[in-house]
Amino acid sequence: MDSYTHNSIPEHGHGHVLQQVEKVLHMTSGVEENSYSHNSALQKTVISKVRPVLEGTVRALYSKENFPRYFSVADLGCSSGPNTLIVTYEMIDAIVGLCRETGHSPPELTVFLNDLPSNDFNTDFKLLPDFYAMLKKEKGNDVGPCFIAGMPGSFYGRLFPSKSLDFVHSSYSVHWLSKVPQGINNNKGNIYMGKTSPHNVFEAYLEQFQSDFSLLLRSRADEIKLGGQMILTFIGRSIKDPTSRDCCLVLELLAKCLLDMAAEGLIQEADIDTFNLPHYSPFIEEVKTIVEKEGSFVIDRLETFEVNLDGNDNEENKNYVFDKFKCGQNVSRCYRAISESLLADHFGEAIIDDLFERFAERIGEHLSMEKTKNFNILISMERK
Amino acid sequence: MDSYTHNSIPEHGHGHVLQQVEKVLHMTSGVEENSYSHNSALQKTVISKVRPVLEGTVRALYSKENFPRYFSVADLGCSSGPNTLIVTYEMIDAIVGLCRETGHSPPELTVFLNDLPSNDFNTDFKLLPDFYAMLKKEKGNDVGPCFIAGMPGSFYGRLFPSKSLDFVHSSYSVHWLSKVPQGINNNKGNIYMGKTSPHNVFEAYLEQFQSDFSLLLRSRADEIKLGGQMILTFIGRSIKDPTSRDCCLVLELLAKCLLDMAAEGLIQEADIDTFNLPHYSPFIEEVKTIVEKEGSFVIDRLETFEVNLDGNDNEENKNYVFDKFKCGQNVSRCYRAISESLLADHFGEAIIDDLFERFAERIGEHLSMEKTKNFNILISMERK
Repeated sequence: MDSYTHNSIPEHGHGHVLQQVEKVLHMTSGVEENSYSHNSALQKTVISKVRPVLEGTVRALYSKENFPRYFSVADLGCSSGPNTLIVTYEMIDAIVGLCRETGHSPPELTVFLNDLPSNDFNTDFKLLPDFYAMLKKEKGNDVGPCFIAGMPGSFYGRLFPSKSLDFVHSSYSVHWLSKVPQGINNNKGNIYMGKTSPHNVFEAYLEQFQSDFSLLLRSRADEIKLGGQMILTFIGRSIKDPTSRDCCLVLELLAKCLLDMAAEGLIQEADIDTFNLPHYSPFIEEVKTIVEKEGSFVIDRLETFEVNLDGNDNEENKNYVFDKFKCGQNVSRCYRAISESLLADHFGEAIIDDLFERFAERIGEHLSMEKTKNFNILISMERK
Repeated sequence: MDSYTHNSIPEHGHGHVLQQVEKVLHMTSGVEENSYSHNSALQKTVISKVRPVLEGTVRALYSKENFPRYFSVADLGCSSGPNTLIVTYEMIDAIVGLCRETGHSPPELTVFLNDLPSNDFNTDFKLLPDFYAMLKKEKGNDVGPCFIAGMPGSFYGRLFPSKSLDFVHSSYSVHWLSKVPQGINNNKGNIYMGKTSPHNVFEAYLEQFQSDFSLLLRSRADEIKLGGQMILTFIGRSIKDPTSRDCCLVLELLAKCLLDMAAEGLIQEADIDTFNLPHYSPFIEEVKTIVEKEGSFVIDRLETFEVNLDGNDNEENKNYVFDKFKCGQNVSRCYRAISESLLADHFGEAIIDDLFERFAERIGEHLSMEKTKNFNILISMERK
């Protein structure tokens, strides 16, 4: 089925167990305050939205053939910290549920956590003893042998042996490009596609995304078994126009903070002109076209959904009260975690604290005037 | 063939290439001065001794069946730093050599680097981009797709899916026990089996080794494909008597340094009595008996060899000149790297520098009077 809808995927109802998982993982992670894992309420909310699709995928995989004895999974762009293992937990939970339902004994499971070699895998690995202990305690003999490995490398290229994977998952990573598009040094006053960007900037960003996303599909096509599945969730935009609000708004606010700092002589304006983020938020049709052109996968689901920019503001968090300051800080920390190293490389470490304080204030101001959503694309595909 | 000899395995002749590999890896590792990887000239010498056996194993694996398209390997207790990838390089080099010789196209290769979750996998992973680039440059199309992953966990237990591995390697790890043997708090003035240890101490150490080594074999028996191979190299002792010089000498010198410090009031003597290392250097017959009793593996080779305690003093290092001070420092650094965390947990961080300065001096004095060797056991086995 090639469904293709803007969907309000229901919030999953097992928040309680997840909170426990998260508690165990947070207690033992010892991650730094500015790490992504510590600031990814947004990503956690997105993962919870994807859970029903993940469950459906596990079901589909298992109905295709005899109940498999072995199941091999990869999580692309896993990052480091507690959220990393929440996806793994979700998957194991779905498998255990299906096994209980059908009376089958649970399969052996290998999970490959993938990210760039510079990712902090040590933090992820140190969580494993507690994670395994929690699984054992919670699931008992209903969970089979589970082996969690790290596979460092770029997902824009081969990572795994041919036809070795049953299922590939990626949450909030595929909107990162392999590099900044070439030839966009004329993108003055912007750090991404913006309303004032010249035409060639939009073209260059789209081309880079087309090239990267095709390479991702081709690489996974080699690695995923026939009939295997892939679910990708990433930031997108709601309309074709690449200057649409849900594409550029937040990064335009960050650019404005940089421009303020340039006006105060804290950084050079020329440095802003030559800084561009290796990020792309595609329109859903762009994604569809690339998948069809590459040709190795059939689209099962292609949907969009929105989450609040402040990930703490979600349906499960009934006690959420908007606070301009807190909310600004939350969003700022999240963006800092994902962009700090790129910004520090270009502008120097010294400006970072100041920049993200300004950004927190701007975001807080903005959100006090209007509730802003992150627009997400979810695609589920089967290897032909 | 169940050969079972004390062998002088020839030094391998491709030291030049290995030096290059090592250079690339050392340049990019940025490892700390006291890390094992930085101080493991001894381990590197041992690896070079094992290389011909490794080559023979690759040959044996490939002659058994049609030339495989895929090859899955694990290195148990890989540690972190440049030496970690030297074994991987050796294996790839052996495969490439055999493919060139036979005209077969190279297989896909997955290498799982295993160590405890507390190991510094980040350092290993950061070496990978340079390692892959060097392979590509040196071997070109003669090397197939190669995927290097980390698998954190204890090798005394399951680590991998059933029947998923072709080859398992471990260098200088299996002499570490899973824990300190129980009931040996009466081992006064010793930190391991020593001449003055009570009888129960020897029994407890042997029992712990029997239990751990059996578990290692049983776990790998599940994971290695039929006909798959395993090569383990570890420290052993030359005669049955567990107080033999090559078993205890070095650790007795370390114990003497602790006793000196106790005499000076720097530590409590009672603390020495309750400290014992989770280490065992078995007699070759003990190893043979456990393998035969466990029953899953046929022994292909079971050999012993010696290397100089100062790993820099080897046949390839023609310019080696004995220097009491330097040599003492080298050996002390090596032992510090493997025992520091255990000692610091028990006696406190504050005594460590002092302890290993004393140890360096004692070792230097000792080596100036007699050249001392490390006695090693090499066992190569096939999964029945």
